[in-house]
Amino acid sequence: MAETYNYEFFNVSFPAEFVAHVEINRPEKLNAFKEVMWHNLSALFDKLSVDPNVRAIVYSGAGRAFTAGLDVQAASEGGTFAPPTVDSARKANGLRRHILEFQDCITSLEKCEKPVICVMHGISFGLALDMSLSCDVRISTQDTKFSVKEVDIGLAADIGTLSRLPHAVGNMSWIKDVALSARVFGSDEALRVGLVSRVAKDKEAGLKEALDLATLVASKSPVAVLGTKEILNYSRDKTVAEGLNYTAVWNAAMLQTDDVKEAMLSGMQKRKVKFAKL
Amino acid sequence: MAETYNYEFFNVSFPAEFVAHVEINRPEKLNAFKEVMWHNLSALFDKLSVDPNVRAIVYSGAGRAFTAGLDVQAASEGGTFAPPTVDSARKANGLRRHILEFQDCITSLEKCEKPVICVMHGISFGLALDMSLSCDVRISTQDTKFSVKEVDIGLAADIGTLSRLPHAVGNMSWIKDVALSARVFGSDEALRVGLVSRVAKDKEAGLKEALDLATLVASKSPVAVLGTKEILNYSRDKTVAEGLNYTAVWNAAMLQTDDVKEAMLSGMQKRKVKFAKL
Amino acid sequence: MAETYNYEFFNVSFPAEFVAHVEINRPEKLNAFKEVMWHNLSALFDKLSVDPNVRAIVYSGAGRAFTAGLDVQAASEGGTFAPPTVDSARKANGLRRHILEFQDCITSLEKCEKPVICVMHGISFGLALDMSLSCDVRISTQDTKFSVKEVDIGLAADIGTLSRLPHAVGNMSWIKDVALSARVFGSDEALRVGLVSRVAKDKEAGLKEALDLATLVASKSPVAVLGTKEILNYSRDKTVAEGLNYTAVWNAAMLQTDDVKEAMLSGMQKRKVKFAKL
Amino acid sequence: MAETYNYEFFNVSFPAEFVAHVEINRPEKLNAFKEVMWHNLSALFDKLSVDPNVRAIVYSGAGRAFTAGLDVQAASEGGTFAPPTVDSARKANGLRRHILEFQDCITSLEKCEKPVICVMHGISFGLALDMSLSCDVRISTQDTKFSVKEVDIGLAADIGTLSRLPHAVGNMSWIKDVALSARVFGSDEALRVGLVSRVAKDKEAGLKEALDLATLVASKSPVAVLGTKEILNYSRDKTVAEGLNYTAVWNAAMLQTDDVKEAMLSGMQKRKVKFAKL
Amino acid sequence: MAETYNYEFFNVSFPAEFVAHVEINRPEKLNAFKEVMWHNLSALFDKLSVDPNVRAIVYSGAGRAFTAGLDVQAASEGGTFAPPTVDSARKANGLRRHILEFQDCITSLEKCEKPVICVMHGISFGLALDMSLSCDVRISTQDTKFSVKEVDIGLAADIGTLSRLPHAVGNMSWIKDVALSARVFGSDEALRVGLVSRVAKDKEAGLKEALDLATLVASKSPVAVLGTKEILNYSRDKTVAEGLNYTAVWNAAMLQTDDVKEAMLSGMQKRKVKFAKL
Amino acid sequence: MAETYNYEFFNVSFPAEFVAHVEINRPEKLNAFKEVMWHNLSALFDKLSVDPNVRAIVYSGAGRAFTAGLDVQAASEGGTFAPPTVDSARKANGLRRHILEFQDCITSLEKCEKPVICVMHGISFGLALDMSLSCDVRISTQDTKFSVKEVDIGLAADIGTLSRLPHAVGNMSWIKDVALSARVFGSDEALRVGLVSRVAKDKEAGLKEALDLATLVASKSPVAVLGTKEILNYSRDKTVAEGLNYTAVWNAAMLQTDDVKEAMLSGMQKRKVKFAKL
Repeated sequence: MAETYNYEFFNVSFPAEFVAHVEINRPEKLNAFKEVMWHNLSALFDKLSVDPNVRAIVYSGAGRAFTAGLDVQAASEGGTFAPPTVDSARKANGLRRHILEFQDCITSLEKCEKPVICVMHGISFGLALDMSLSCDVRISTQDTKFSVKEVDIGLAADIGTLSRLPHAVGNMSWIKDVALSARVFGSDEALRVGLVSRVAKDKEAGLKEALDLATLVASKSPVAVLGTKEILNYSRDKTVAEGLNYTAVWNAAMLQTDDVKEAMLSGMQKRKVKFAKL
Repeated sequence: MAETYNYEFFNVSFPAEFVAHVEINRPEKLNAFKEVMWHNLSALFDKLSVDPNVRAIVYSGAGRAFTAGLDVQAASEGGTFAPPTVDSARKANGLRRHILEFQDCITSLEKCEKPVICVMHGISFGLALDMSLSCDVRISTQDTKFSVKEVDIGLAADIGTLSRLPHAVGNMSWIKDVALSARVFGSDEALRVGLVSRVAKDKEAGLKEALDLATLVASKSPVAVLGTKEILNYSRDKTVAEGLNYTAVWNAAMLQTDDVKEAMLSGMQKRKVKFAKL
Repeated sequence: MAETYNYEFFNVSFPAEFVAHVEINRPEKLNAFKEVMWHNLSALFDKLSVDPNVRAIVYSGAGRAFTAGLDVQAASEGGTFAPPTVDSARKANGLRRHILEFQDCITSLEKCEKPVICVMHGISFGLALDMSLSCDVRISTQDTKFSVKEVDIGLAADIGTLSRLPHAVGNMSWIKDVALSARVFGSDEALRVGLVSRVAKDKEAGLKEALDLATLVASKSPVAVLGTKEILNYSRDKTVAEGLNYTAVWNAAMLQTDDVKEAMLSGMQKRKVKFAKL
Repeated sequence: MAETYNYEFFNVSFPAEFVAHVEINRPEKLNAFKEVMWHNLSALFDKLSVDPNVRAIVYSGAGRAFTAGLDVQAASEGGTFAPPTVDSARKANGLRRHILEFQDCITSLEKCEKPVICVMHGISFGLALDMSLSCDVRISTQDTKFSVKEVDIGLAADIGTLSRLPHAVGNMSWIKDVALSARVFGSDEALRVGLVSRVAKDKEAGLKEALDLATLVASKSPVAVLGTKEILNYSRDKTVAEGLNYTAVWNAAMLQTDDVKEAMLSGMQKRKVKFAKL
Repeated sequence: MAETYNYEFFNVSFPAEFVAHVEINRPEKLNAFKEVMWHNLSALFDKLSVDPNVRAIVYSGAGRAFTAGLDVQAASEGGTFAPPTVDSARKANGLRRHILEFQDCITSLEKCEKPVICVMHGISFGLALDMSLSCDVRISTQDTKFSVKEVDIGLAADIGTLSRLPHAVGNMSWIKDVALSARVFGSDEALRVGLVSRVAKDKEAGLKEALDLATLVASKSPVAVLGTKEILNYSRDKTVAEGLNYTAVWNAAMLQTDDVKEAMLSGMQKRKVKFAKL
Repeated sequence: MAETYNYEFFNVSFPAEFVAHVEINRPEKLNAFKEVMWHNLSALFDKLSVDPNVRAIVYSGAGRAFTAGLDVQAASEGGTFAPPTVDSARKANGLRRHILEFQDCITSLEKCEKPVICVMHGISFGLALDMSLSCDVRISTQDTKFSVKEVDIGLAADIGTLSRLPHAVGNMSWIKDVALSARVFGSDEALRVGLVSRVAKDKEAGLKEALDLATLVASKSPVAVLGTKEILNYSRDKTVAEGLNYTAVWNAAMLQTDDVKEAMLSGMQKRKVKFAKL
């Protein structure tokens, strides 16, 4: 099965039933991202999203860091910051197209129908935050070094951090504090303000915790898990009244699932629950 | 006065001036809810909402638990999960009607003009969260066991938890962590992430704290308290600019109240303030 | 330069390059606000917003308190609560006009293109919260006494606290707790729930911390800082998808800045970065 | 069947299979509304909404007029405009409760799951517009006299006209023209600006046209008709992207209906289509 | 009274009781706008908005045209299109500030508490549409020549036409047709699609019609007229449910007006109605 | 150039400088759509969107009809309406995925950076409306037969008609009239209600009119045309205030274009304007 997920800079494995593990694999560059990588990331998660053998996903980085973020050198050479036209408006439109495409790739993590649990260890700068904020659950380790790094290279973060942080963390003063200064902060601060929900001792412990959680989630009804992710994401962006109405329409179909019966019966019969694939 | 609030599964009392106490009363079933109960809950709070003798409400559960949530057995028998038609679309519409009606009942807690302070102790699963998230203030106790339980019975929570959690708690990673896994968590975690604002030693202490807070709120201008609840709920769902404009229109009427004068005078004259009924 | 910022109740100084310090200066009244003050506050920050010599601003209070809030006595005399007309609807419209104008003055802090770091010490009641919630970063001190005071004088806070709190703090239960009761709370609570992001030992330490942060922010690209503040404020009020699209359009122009090149070059050349004025 | 719809001021009949006809019946007062009437209207349409024998509804007025609107005399006596309290803020809250309740009654026409076709003839003032704008299709006659009458009695229309007109008619200049002046206008103008979609010669012809349309709609799949009404109402209030997503979730359940197969088969077999009840 | 409205490029007169007439007065340039003019326009309408002697306003142009739009020559000289900085991002921010300020000036027409009736005759290009779309009622004449002119000078209209047209006119195909091509169109087309609500024979007839309408509006309760304009503008931008709730809060204060009684009494007593000033 | 646009069911030609013509080419089936066609449509317009040699696009159908809509027979065989799983919830999710993907394909017409002018002749049912409503300008002919056909086959239209109609046409009564009944209507009605902005004599005349308009649009600054389409689409879905702010940010970059200078100079020099490619 893993062979259908064959990408140069990502290792994909299946450590438990219905659980996938995606590992960024460019450790010699601290997993810095160049353009082919975000396109592959997107292709990879679009495939996982509809793979009936996958119900939960762990996302982490190989080597000493989750990711150092954008490979700035590659970006400069690739012309990201200097499209060859002269007219400012045409440059602007080229940049707009480029940013929208880049954002779409990262948003694949959020659109993935299956929950994605992200383990952040070591250097986790810039794009590390953009990506982790598109994931569902964020776990860090004692040694994680976070930074909303973009302001340090003269730009406002544009691949999702600024749009998602105010909806992920409930402390706007802190958000501005780190986003305006690009200062490095650690897991204690991240836990206190709610950027991560758990801090593990080290990478190994973090991966274990993520894998345990993924395995637990994967043991639940895939219909219920899909709905829970979808409705939470919808509700984050909407009023309570809109969320309630959407939930009613969503569940009009989804409550008809046999999983409800299966969940109840297996409970009463004290046997392992077994859900059909989704 | 209490006799006008006569419902089989709810005890209503008036422990202090202008303060009502509503207690779920089906302790032999850990206060699990069957259909008549949410209809009565709604009728009860609609009445309290406009009762001029009530200015703040405490909401809690009799016995060993706040509530174990939906009475799943009664729901199964009542046909909630298995409407008698065959066509999937017609079943879907039946379920949609049912969910919307159920949601409306729980939303009565939120629409109630008077603040509702919820005390959650012991088992507080599923519907316990739906209801408490419609209340204004949440207090728990050292022994509270919380769970967004729905995913365990094959469905996405649809009576409000998923729609309200992202607007009540500022830690989306944690919200997904507990909602996708249905894992049980305690008061320490609830306090850290902001699901509750206070943790009391035990049920008795929690009730006392709630009653004290309710008594304090009930001593303030009912016009000011009504406006504060209404504008906070409105603003939660809107942009800052929309909130500001709504506040201006709201207060265009409400600042004309005699309560302002009364509040200032009583302060200067060092006497007990006395507001007209609302 | 300071002489162009000459206002009776505000001291304006420039303690570091590109950093302004605005101090409320009516210490004999605990910096309570009368009408001329909010008009001057607005004029002052509108000017700082476009002053090319300013890149970050510290905002604090002279004397023993940040501010005791509205000067209620002056407001009463000025007719704020008692417009001279008789017809309720005409009174209402007068109040609406007045509130909208007052709100607009305070919103100048939020609209200011440069980040505003607020230091709250001592008494910080009512308007203190309205103003600090329009600032970007909030720092308090061990002795800060906060209160959403308005309900105590018979009204719902209408100059921004109720509209901004649910978007600044991720704990709705706590927000209702303090806003409905007007109870006084301290820095420990403020830090835990995310109202402030830092607590300093005392006023002096708080000012130093604010000044250090302002100096750090002022050393970054002004184009990047402006964009970061603007996009965060926009995203707070919008869905993630809307935030992403806005970011792409914003950066279509802003990524063309020479600051990116300057930031990268100065990094490589290990020299002090120097950005053009904005 | 008609006997279950027994209301003093409304005649309910069933002129064709699956078609109901509701007629306002207070012709001696030009069908002017007093409070009991809007409560009954609401009860009546809530019942029709879930009646499996009803698939489309015609709504019209007995006698010489659709309705002259609010029975102002009854309203004055009933205290609508003069609640007995003295404090302006308390009066305001009483009025707010009253208006919200009144609006809810009229919104029952919009919330009704079955399409409502409104025939407006003769005097159609004030509440006539509030109600017809909650209906799905509006048909008038050569002699209809429309007026957004409220400004003539010193108030801004508050039961729905001002909120619904900008979403029903695409000519804001005309909307302001008639709403600010309360001038009377006729069917030619109403058709040109899109307030009505058809003008019939007289009441009889209008009723026939409405009945024909209702009969046609009632011959379609009730699942498809319900979805079409619901999605159009939803989309009116939302962005295109939101509408598309909602449609996908809605149809996830509704496309599973047997009605699709039945509609196709009956077409191929050239026989009358027959759908199960909803 | 007119002398307090003394602006070089605007004639202000009071042709009827409570009615103001504002005339653009730069006929030798076909009333083309230079910067001082939009600042004065804003100051002028801000003053009319709160002038108790004004209840309705007619807005038109002196000479042969309503307005030819922006004085492009003056704009070029004034540096609008060529700010003196070199860095693209800094230029961008300068342009953004300038556009926002310009838009704010034109929005004064929309924010004006009193209805504004616009008469468009002769050339009505570019800014003519921006301004008229901020007015409440649009009347044109047989000879009006309209054009969304901006695309002809290489830019997308940015002072309001593109933002307001889709909310003023219900024919998106036509809006795109004229906005993308900058083609000139006449009053017949404008009336058919709903850009104007009336077409008069010539300027004189148009002014008379506007004055008659203004006089009629000015004879109504100023409280009712203010509310009608405000709620219609609010509802244009919001869902129906939001509009209904806002209306209820607005009218909670405004229904307390003595104007209701006065309107009813004067009707019964067949005497001229007389409302207090607002 | 045309050879790069090689699709089995679409003819692509370039009848004028910077103008593309896309023709649906399955005339033997009245241009009915099967799945490969909407995927190709999407690929085709995504390419045109960024093709620097294209500035405006005409979209029409070969043969006797624009399109008869979905190829229902092919859809049935392809399993669109009958996914092979048994569980209702899993079927629902499969349908949801399918509908979202189908919608995305059609939305490519709306997302295309270049304006799309649609010519509808003959049968224009179902999907014909979904697609034309994603285009910018709609032109029909004397013989066009329109129908929102979906309700006739037991379903609510889900590829865009219901979501886009309320934002394209300003007559909700008419929208419900045709969408609930599936009745066929002609060009006179379509023009009156604003579904199309022009009616040509026949297909040939319609194509000429579309080509003339496309040629005119293609002669304008591509920067201005892009901005006009983008801002109009944005504003359709947003409040006026949001539209104004977005316009300011958009034009912050786009006003820096050399096209403004070129447009002005060529006008003064009376020579043909020549804009750089986009």
